[in-house]
Amino acid sequence: MDNGRSTDLLSAWDFDPDDDTLREECGVFGIYGHPEAATITALGLHALQHRGQEATGIVSFDGARFHSERRLGLVGDAFSDHDVIRQLAGNSAIGHVRYATTGETMLRNVQPLFAELAGGGFAVAHNGNLTNGLTLRSRLVREGAICQSTSDTEVILHLVARSRHSRFVDRFIDALVQLEGAYSFVGLTNKKLVGARDPLGIRPLVLGQLDGHYILASETCALDIIGAQFIRDVENGEIIVIDDDGIESIKPFVAQPMRPCIFEYIYFARPDSIVHGRSVYDVRKKMGAQLALEAPAAADVVVPVPDSGVPAAIGYARACDIPYELGIIRNHYIGRTFIQPTQSVRELGVRMKHSANRGAVEGKRIVLVDDSIVRGTTSMKIVQMMRDAGAREVHFRIASPPITHPDYYGIDTPEREKLLAATHSVEEMRALIGADSLAFLSVDGIYRACGYQGRDPRRPQFADHCFTGDYPTPLTDVDGEAPRQAALLAEAG
Amino acid sequence: MDNGRSTDLLSAWDFDPDDDTLREECGVFGIYGHPEAATITALGLHALQHRGQEATGIVSFDGARFHSERRLGLVGDAFSDHDVIRQLAGNSAIGHVRYATTGETMLRNVQPLFAELAGGGFAVAHNGNLTNGLTLRSRLVREGAICQSTSDTEVILHLVARSRHSRFVDRFIDALVQLEGAYSFVGLTNKKLVGARDPLGIRPLVLGQLDGHYILASETCALDIIGAQFIRDVENGEIIVIDDDGIESIKPFVAQPMRPCIFEYIYFARPDSIVHGRSVYDVRKKMGAQLALEAPAAADVVVPVPDSGVPAAIGYARACDIPYELGIIRNHYIGRTFIQPTQSVRELGVRMKHSANRGAVEGKRIVLVDDSIVRGTTSMKIVQMMRDAGAREVHFRIASPPITHPDYYGIDTPEREKLLAATHSVEEMRALIGADSLAFLSVDGIYRACGYQGRDPRRPQFADHCFTGDYPTPLTDVDGEAPRQAALLAEAG
Amino acid sequence: MDNGRSTDLLSAWDFDPDDDTLREECGVFGIYGHPEAATITALGLHALQHRGQEATGIVSFDGARFHSERRLGLVGDAFSDHDVIRQLAGNSAIGHVRYATTGETMLRNVQPLFAELAGGGFAVAHNGNLTNGLTLRSRLVREGAICQSTSDTEVILHLVARSRHSRFVDRFIDALVQLEGAYSFVGLTNKKLVGARDPLGIRPLVLGQLDGHYILASETCALDIIGAQFIRDVENGEIIVIDDDGIESIKPFVAQPMRPCIFEYIYFARPDSIVHGRSVYDVRKKMGAQLALEAPAAADVVVPVPDSGVPAAIGYARACDIPYELGIIRNHYIGRTFIQPTQSVRELGVRMKHSANRGAVEGKRIVLVDDSIVRGTTSMKIVQMMRDAGAREVHFRIASPPITHPDYYGIDTPEREKLLAATHSVEEMRALIGADSLAFLSVDGIYRACGYQGRDPRRPQFADHCFTGDYPTPLTDVDGEAPRQAALLAEAG
Amino acid sequence: MDNGRSTDLLSAWDFDPDDDTLREECGVFGIYGHPEAATITALGLHALQHRGQEATGIVSFDGARFHSERRLGLVGDAFSDHDVIRQLAGNSAIGHVRYATTGETMLRNVQPLFAELAGGGFAVAHNGNLTNGLTLRSRLVREGAICQSTSDTEVILHLVARSRHSRFVDRFIDALVQLEGAYSFVGLTNKKLVGARDPLGIRPLVLGQLDGHYILASETCALDIIGAQFIRDVENGEIIVIDDDGIESIKPFVAQPMRPCIFEYIYFARPDSIVHGRSVYDVRKKMGAQLALEAPAAADVVVPVPDSGVPAAIGYARACDIPYELGIIRNHYIGRTFIQPTQSVRELGVRMKHSANRGAVEGKRIVLVDDSIVRGTTSMKIVQMMRDAGAREVHFRIASPPITHPDYYGIDTPEREKLLAATHSVEEMRALIGADSLAFLSVDGIYRACGYQGRDPRRPQFADHCFTGDYPTPLTDVDGEAPRQAALLAEAG
Repeated sequence: MDNGRSTDLLSAWDFDPDDDTLREECGVFGIYGHPEAATITALGLHALQHRGQEATGIVSFDGARFHSERRLGLVGDAFSDHDVIRQLAGNSAIGHVRYATTGETMLRNVQPLFAELAGGGFAVAHNGNLTNGLTLRSRLVREGAICQSTSDTEVILHLVARSRHSRFVDRFIDALVQLEGAYSFVGLTNKKLVGARDPLGIRPLVLGQLDGHYILASETCALDIIGAQFIRDVENGEIIVIDDDGIESIKPFVAQPMRPCIFEYIYFARPDSIVHGRSVYDVRKKMGAQLALEAPAAADVVVPVPDSGVPAAIGYARACDIPYELGIIRNHYIGRTFIQPTQSVRELGVRMKHSANRGAVEGKRIVLVDDSIVRGTTSMKIVQMMRDAGAREVHFRIASPPITHPDYYGIDTPEREKLLAATHSVEEMRALIGADSLAFLSVDGIYRACGYQGRDPRRPQFADHCFTGDYPTPLTDVDGEAPRQAALLAEAG
Repeated sequence: MDNGRSTDLLSAWDFDPDDDTLREECGVFGIYGHPEAATITALGLHALQHRGQEATGIVSFDGARFHSERRLGLVGDAFSDHDVIRQLAGNSAIGHVRYATTGETMLRNVQPLFAELAGGGFAVAHNGNLTNGLTLRSRLVREGAICQSTSDTEVILHLVARSRHSRFVDRFIDALVQLEGAYSFVGLTNKKLVGARDPLGIRPLVLGQLDGHYILASETCALDIIGAQFIRDVENGEIIVIDDDGIESIKPFVAQPMRPCIFEYIYFARPDSIVHGRSVYDVRKKMGAQLALEAPAAADVVVPVPDSGVPAAIGYARACDIPYELGIIRNHYIGRTFIQPTQSVRELGVRMKHSANRGAVEGKRIVLVDDSIVRGTTSMKIVQMMRDAGAREVHFRIASPPITHPDYYGIDTPEREKLLAATHSVEEMRALIGADSLAFLSVDGIYRACGYQGRDPRRPQFADHCFTGDYPTPLTDVDGEAPRQAALLAEAG
Repeated sequence: MDNGRSTDLLSAWDFDPDDDTLREECGVFGIYGHPEAATITALGLHALQHRGQEATGIVSFDGARFHSERRLGLVGDAFSDHDVIRQLAGNSAIGHVRYATTGETMLRNVQPLFAELAGGGFAVAHNGNLTNGLTLRSRLVREGAICQSTSDTEVILHLVARSRHSRFVDRFIDALVQLEGAYSFVGLTNKKLVGARDPLGIRPLVLGQLDGHYILASETCALDIIGAQFIRDVENGEIIVIDDDGIESIKPFVAQPMRPCIFEYIYFARPDSIVHGRSVYDVRKKMGAQLALEAPAAADVVVPVPDSGVPAAIGYARACDIPYELGIIRNHYIGRTFIQPTQSVRELGVRMKHSANRGAVEGKRIVLVDDSIVRGTTSMKIVQMMRDAGAREVHFRIASPPITHPDYYGIDTPEREKLLAATHSVEEMRALIGADSLAFLSVDGIYRACGYQGRDPRRPQFADHCFTGDYPTPLTDVDGEAPRQAALLAEAG
Repeated sequence: MDNGRSTDLLSAWDFDPDDDTLREECGVFGIYGHPEAATITALGLHALQHRGQEATGIVSFDGARFHSERRLGLVGDAFSDHDVIRQLAGNSAIGHVRYATTGETMLRNVQPLFAELAGGGFAVAHNGNLTNGLTLRSRLVREGAICQSTSDTEVILHLVARSRHSRFVDRFIDALVQLEGAYSFVGLTNKKLVGARDPLGIRPLVLGQLDGHYILASETCALDIIGAQFIRDVENGEIIVIDDDGIESIKPFVAQPMRPCIFEYIYFARPDSIVHGRSVYDVRKKMGAQLALEAPAAADVVVPVPDSGVPAAIGYARACDIPYELGIIRNHYIGRTFIQPTQSVRELGVRMKHSANRGAVEGKRIVLVDDSIVRGTTSMKIVQMMRDAGAREVHFRIASPPITHPDYYGIDTPEREKLLAATHSVEEMRALIGADSLAFLSVDGIYRACGYQGRDPRRPQFADHCFTGDYPTPLTDVDGEAPRQAALLAEAG
């Protein structure tokens, strides 16, 4: 079912000729016991804004009642009004920023989701994706559950609601053990703030502290913005329970080695975040340096594709001692939507987001450094833009391996057939993109940039399925019956 | 839980010094198989606007998908945009106008409500109130159901979802038999339009036809606006099922005599509607005439309290041959909210909605005719306004009996202690209101205006509990444990 | 030039199949020295809302600065927000409600208009229309004046700004003597509240008092709503100057007998207003009674066309002793815009505003009473609606003479060729409208209802040019060169 | 006078702790004869968005009528709607982006401004500031002119309107010769697109061409975005007149050497723009290199203050062969407004826009490079942020000389007493900012980066008054009587 209103808001065509990126679906944040809980949460979400710009929400609890505010758009617009913050009363709160993945973006899907259970209210925000979400949802609907959202996050609410256990934490565990896939949850009840990370720790979650009040957040940059202290990463398979009695760690799953998603380092995490003890900025520079080692180029300047290619370009430039130059300027003043050009205007080759800095590239042999190639459409345009600006040679270097497989853990990758590297050889890609040379970082190279000797094939240190096809969990929805049923359901209603 | 946004929308103080009326919570409308289903539904709801002005919604089905649009405010504002109507694609639709009763008005509560059930989508709109709604809801939540709205209408969705029957109609009946209280439902599935009226037929529902396409609506005026034909009233305890094969009538309940709510005649229905074969306008004039018979007054003019007192005043004036005069002018241009006056301005005795027509009342002995007295606050102001305008005597006549008991069937009456007649004798009321005389129509008088000899005490022809305390159904929520539990729940979450 | 935004706001098609009325363009209000000046003004404008529903504005002066708020829409919506009222600081204020006439409705045209003159700010609100407005405007533009609005009211600002006098009142008079046509102005400077009425007093203006603070308003109903006392009508050709020293009356024009617009009695003024000592409600009833005398009908019921025909219908019914019945019900919940029906829906004959009360008219011979016929489109629909509802005979009676000439003094009449009575005989009109008989009140009849023996042809007591073609002032713009020039100007820019 | 609405929109407190920049007030764009004039203009304005983000407007001419759309906010939001663009019909258009300077930002001040003159409409958009604007305005108001905006741009409209010449171009010249200060105008009449640059060419303006249609724009980046060709800079004191007969250049002033504003190179122009034949990016790198020469530092890393310090930091790093590192991360997702923190939250030292990249600076001696110091508040915070992140030493280097004098030509500098360098020695500034060392580029150094030997004291090549106090034009408003009069006027009304 479409909610006309929300759809309408998003139906305005977003003219972004460069929309060819990976998109994470979420960031989460929670704080317990702080008198300014909603403000702190809004600030934390602002620092996590790069993880999702389509919608945001906060739920607070004031000791007696839950309060909720969920909006489409940026944190800074949604929570700019004092009245809005004032209504989010209470000293505990959780929040969420999101991209749409499994559900269409509509207000009903904006998180945190909330339900009144028999024992009281429960709000939950989710980063990740369940690989058996549709299967569980089908089962629940057959049993008479009413799903209001199309988000797979709602499944956790129903599982908690239906648990036969009486204590909330037992019900929560009861629900978690039924889930497959990747998840970092923060949840709020009338007594507790809870966090949970999937058994492999695919999606990130960190624990911090501000003036003695515990915080859970997707990345350390959300702690830094408010001057909070980083305590530690939440471990894979760990449940954190925070209440007036303090903090408790529960590990209900059989212990497994962690396999965090490698894309947090390559693309998603903010460069100033520390993920599992590594500076993201530093890892990216090392990827650039490793790339220079694996695939050097005879060139006059190294040009980053802004903003995501910048650290790798700095690393590359330094490793091969070629000057680093801003050959591409990025316009950050993109409104939410922009004019859809007519065909005649489109043919002008308008660049809303990127423009060439002719003075820096004209007559030069350039090494263009980007973090990844997804569909390849941006790459084609950028290379052409460099040539139009007078670049003599364009050597394209990608600081990650070719993406050959889709993700099912919360990254919005296109279907396999739209992944350029899934259907083209490197030489075919080069020809298509129009570069003079093209090279990717090797899979082992990426592990080296992270401090390993290389990938351990028996027990890979990261979830790297997009490069290797080695999915770390079962893919029940994809492999099973659920998808077809889901499609039928959607048609029915 | 509060949704800040909606609350905000309504928190603007509605300065209506005359807000002392009974308020029906709903009107419903549905049409099956018409190519302009959403437009027809919007027009039908416009004609039913008097039944609820706080929110409105339409759900349509286009053969493959359901579309929904729910808004706070008037039908004419919510459905003024072609884009909105265009998104409500399909040739079947149901709609709703509402006042808040059991749930706070928030967007989540605006009907029609919708759920994706195992067999497909189901949308439902409800006029009435379940007297065991909280009891059922408590049981459902204990069983793990997640209630998104605070509306008792959601209970029907859960009951249908949880039924063990496989055919939709069986599931719907399975749900209906668990309900107590008053309801007129219209529902829409991917195959059918259904209507249902409670076993006593407390709330109204009529069946009509437009170019061969069936329509269900709360009142005949919703048929008239689109030039549709009235077929018949849906009977008490009857379920109407409309699909491509035609229309079917199902009566799953033990047959009982009908007991429609008498207030439809007194106040709610539009004067041009025909309810159970009687012209509402005509009944109201007869109530006025009967009142003249029972409680004549020596006066110069008969003045209606506009707009609800007008037909009774015409009847009264004619019966006693006293000139009918517009002694009170009503300002219809009230915006949704208005300035909350400061104390100093309030003391000016500002009248936003009513003003005295001095020329018509100055120096006169007047009979003031209104349809009912609820709290009495308006009556006091109106009488004072007449005196300020120079009326020599004010004889107040009410074309219905004293309201001594609250309603639990969908009329928004105040708690018993706030009903003026529940705690005051007629003479006490007269003194308080400041009238020279005060008289109410008798209970038997109201039956006479409807064509009966009087009330049949063994088997009353109407639901008249507000005057008599004779509630036609059990009041499980009020009498049982549920209310206290509900209060606890609310506190918890 | 179009301001896209405002245009946009109004471009939504206002589906009002019955939009066939005369529309006054304005109401004005001003108060001096009251601590709640803006609130009082908002309330006064609310009482004047019937004089213009398209836009409203208030300008206040706080002793140091002017504050302004101008909006499209109703007073109750524009001034519902405390913040808005709080920004209108100060103890003097003027306000305006309007329909568009000479200027398109766009925010720039919404009054009060304001200018910073050499001596300080000057805000002005205008009810009426200048018959030499375009001529003056052309001259001003040729002299280098820049007109921001397309409203003729702006002309007065320029004339005051360009006056060679130094005292404000002298400059104001300097401007007034150049104007032709009808005007009731209220103006506000940093020292004074001024009012002015044209030499014939065509448009109304009254003087009142609230707790010793003077008020100027279009009608007495704007005094009544705030409990203010009526002092007297401002006289024709009189300027009222109110400041800290009290009140002053200036009469700069050669004295002439007053000729107020007869349409204030027939249609515009609120029934509870007292205009020039006469109760409007009473005059309308007398018009109805006089009409019954002049054009009786053998009928069973008298049915008013609501709301404007109601008082005349009461008068008519009583004069000929035929029962008065609400045969037509008016829906007051019209949103600002409504769905534009498709052709197929339009053919259903949808009635958004009026519906037949079948019970009251079926099988009856009815006398339908309305206040006037303009284009005749509504009349045709109403008569047809009565026949569809089963009326046996329809005798149409109009409580004013045939409108044969357009107004140029602030009433939004159509061009002459669209005035039904300008091109059709009474019998032709009857045939077109489909009534069994049709009759209008005579010109003398209308004077009789106002207490005269009849119209004094040498010195008519009213401006009645719409019935007689006897325009009370020169029509410079119409007769002169200005209109053509204006058209050229418009094209140019 | 305040227009409550617009004020309201901006009254939300913009919490930007780093708001310590110079702000240009405007960018202008115009195109003549292109079938997609409004779309082209919107795209051009998008490329000029860095020159003003508070408001934007476009006026088009369709051969018969002018159309206008003016909004607060970003170009991408204002012109995202097809309907808006469609209403801006015609093949000529001009547009504007702005910061508020002399007038408060209210919708009435948003440019282009428009007036209907005797000869037709005239729209004008202005980048710059008149140093005799208030003086001219006072004279005009004394003569009876009515000023609707508080913008000094309106003065040009009045001067053109009042000119005694008959041809438009003569009137325009008549107006220009009365102006003092800096201006780049684009103007649109019903026949012509005109551009004008002040006699010294203080503000920039370039001429381009797209498919044979002439374009005027503030910077070349506005040509690049639509693939237009750069023709040449408009010369100082040159008027460009474009119509169906082609292009004409008029030079009505006595020839003078050009003195463009040096801040275009330092801060305002986009790095990819070419200003007077120099690549802005290249000049900025050279300023950094020159700064390294003048003020080297023993350090481990060079860290830019993003985004404005980036090119100079690259130049500095390369000149002294110290690694360039992103030690500060900028959050580009700032909404228009953000939560005003409570005192307790503020004390957390929240950084909405910048955050430290600890991994890059911890334990390092850093050279921090920025483009300028205005108030110094940002500098203090940034230095502290670096120290908090563990920087061992912080050497602050500014790639421009100390700003000791305010600008009066369209740059929003604070009053002199708030300019840190106006009241502090370099050593005092260093101590205040908390850096280990502080150094500025010399005045001659900046000329060297632009290719000169140094500043020519007899005939300086640039307007560099902010560094030298050598104002290139009279400052009539500042030195004369006007400001006091203006203040009085404002009080009066």
